[in-house]
Amino acid sequence: MGAKGGQEVKTTLFVIRHAESQWNPIGRYQGLLNPDLSERGEKQAKILAKELKNKGIEVIYTSPLLRTKRTAQIIAEELNVPLIEDERVIEIDHGVWSGKLVEEVKKEFPEMFEMWITRPWKVDFPEGENLLKVFERVKDFIRFVKEKHKGQTVAVVSHTVPIRALYCAALELPIEKFWSFGCDNASYSIINFEEDRTTLHKLNITCHLEREGLYEEAHRAL
Amino acid sequence: MGAKGGQEVKTTLFVIRHAESQWNPIGRYQGLLNPDLSERGEKQAKILAKELKNKGIEVIYTSPLLRTKRTAQIIAEELNVPLIEDERVIEIDHGVWSGKLVEEVKKEFPEMFEMWITRPWKVDFPEGENLLKVFERVKDFIRFVKEKHKGQTVAVVSHTVPIRALYCAALELPIEKFWSFGCDNASYSIINFEEDRTTLHKLNITCHLEREGLYEEAHRAL
Repeated sequence: MGAKGGQEVKTTLFVIRHAESQWNPIGRYQGLLNPDLSERGEKQAKILAKELKNKGIEVIYTSPLLRTKRTAQIIAEELNVPLIEDERVIEIDHGVWSGKLVEEVKKEFPEMFEMWITRPWKVDFPEGENLLKVFERVKDFIRFVKEKHKGQTVAVVSHTVPIRALYCAALELPIEKFWSFGCDNASYSIINFEEDRTTLHKLNITCHLEREGLYEEAHRAL
Repeated sequence: MGAKGGQEVKTTLFVIRHAESQWNPIGRYQGLLNPDLSERGEKQAKILAKELKNKGIEVIYTSPLLRTKRTAQIIAEELNVPLIEDERVIEIDHGVWSGKLVEEVKKEFPEMFEMWITRPWKVDFPEGENLLKVFERVKDFIRFVKEKHKGQTVAVVSHTVPIRALYCAALELPIEKFWSFGCDNASYSIINFEEDRTTLHKLNITCHLEREGLYEEAHRAL
């Protein structure tokens, strides 16, 4: 029931980070490079798929990279729902950082790294993208979901950078709040869009992984 | 490792909403009134206490009301840690709404109710408190935790209104974002305070309840 006594229309978005890739455990920036899931990542995705059953998810959108697509495929098969690729939720193009370890980036680009941690929206990755561009494309994705799937429950499988930008966009926060949200491999969050409010209902759920000894906290700089 | 290569000092706060009270399932505003836990609430608190073991919590602060204190006692016993009452995290004083059902409040105070849903910081509860006052006292509580428990892991057991205000305070968001966060009975969230960032690492975790069939989503107006 809404504030005025009317029935609320609720659109629900499950926000899923891809399971562990081959490069996640060693802290290597991926950007648009395309490593597949690790062995542990495959296990995580299967557990996550079972966890997401019977939650009403009707369709899954995914970033077209391998690590997201593979995670999304495993979930879509388990849930028996359609899977749609969407470029708007692809990872930021880290440009010249792509393929480098965090420790290498710290040495080679100390000022840019410091900026990424403290004012990430100011970083223009050479040969890559800027966070503000990611912010615009996830805003567009949210508008699309709210319109196309009004009253439905849908899911999106994406990456740390677009996911954190998406939280800012959904809650109408400035991109300055980018680092404010946890985002672990094979986690899911739930956002409810209603007429009079948007709620981050659950954030960065990983209980399904913890139960199976498959949980690993994300690197703080990725 | 911090941005500059130094070791980060991390202070972790577990934010716990009390287990179900006798009035929660019927949607009755409580404020400073003092119903005890329901039978289901007692079960929830015990499951939550087991869930919170071995997470490094060193001390628990609690609002002095019965529903929070009883929840906190059950956890403190299971974890074998000290329990301290703190008035700064007590529920908002709902004044004349206290003891009334949501449906009664809607009929008797339609404009104030509409305001509570859309611009809650503008509501001065007759014979009660204003959200901005709650915002100030939870800000003070956060400052206290960051200073007194620097580098430690502590927990606080509180209520929907101070908890949502606390998320705004911790992430340095305006109180306008008050309704942006889920807050279910016997849930917990994790906030990490580091020198260069504050992260809402997990929000409104209730997996421990879902597993046992003890989960109930909070009323949207409470």
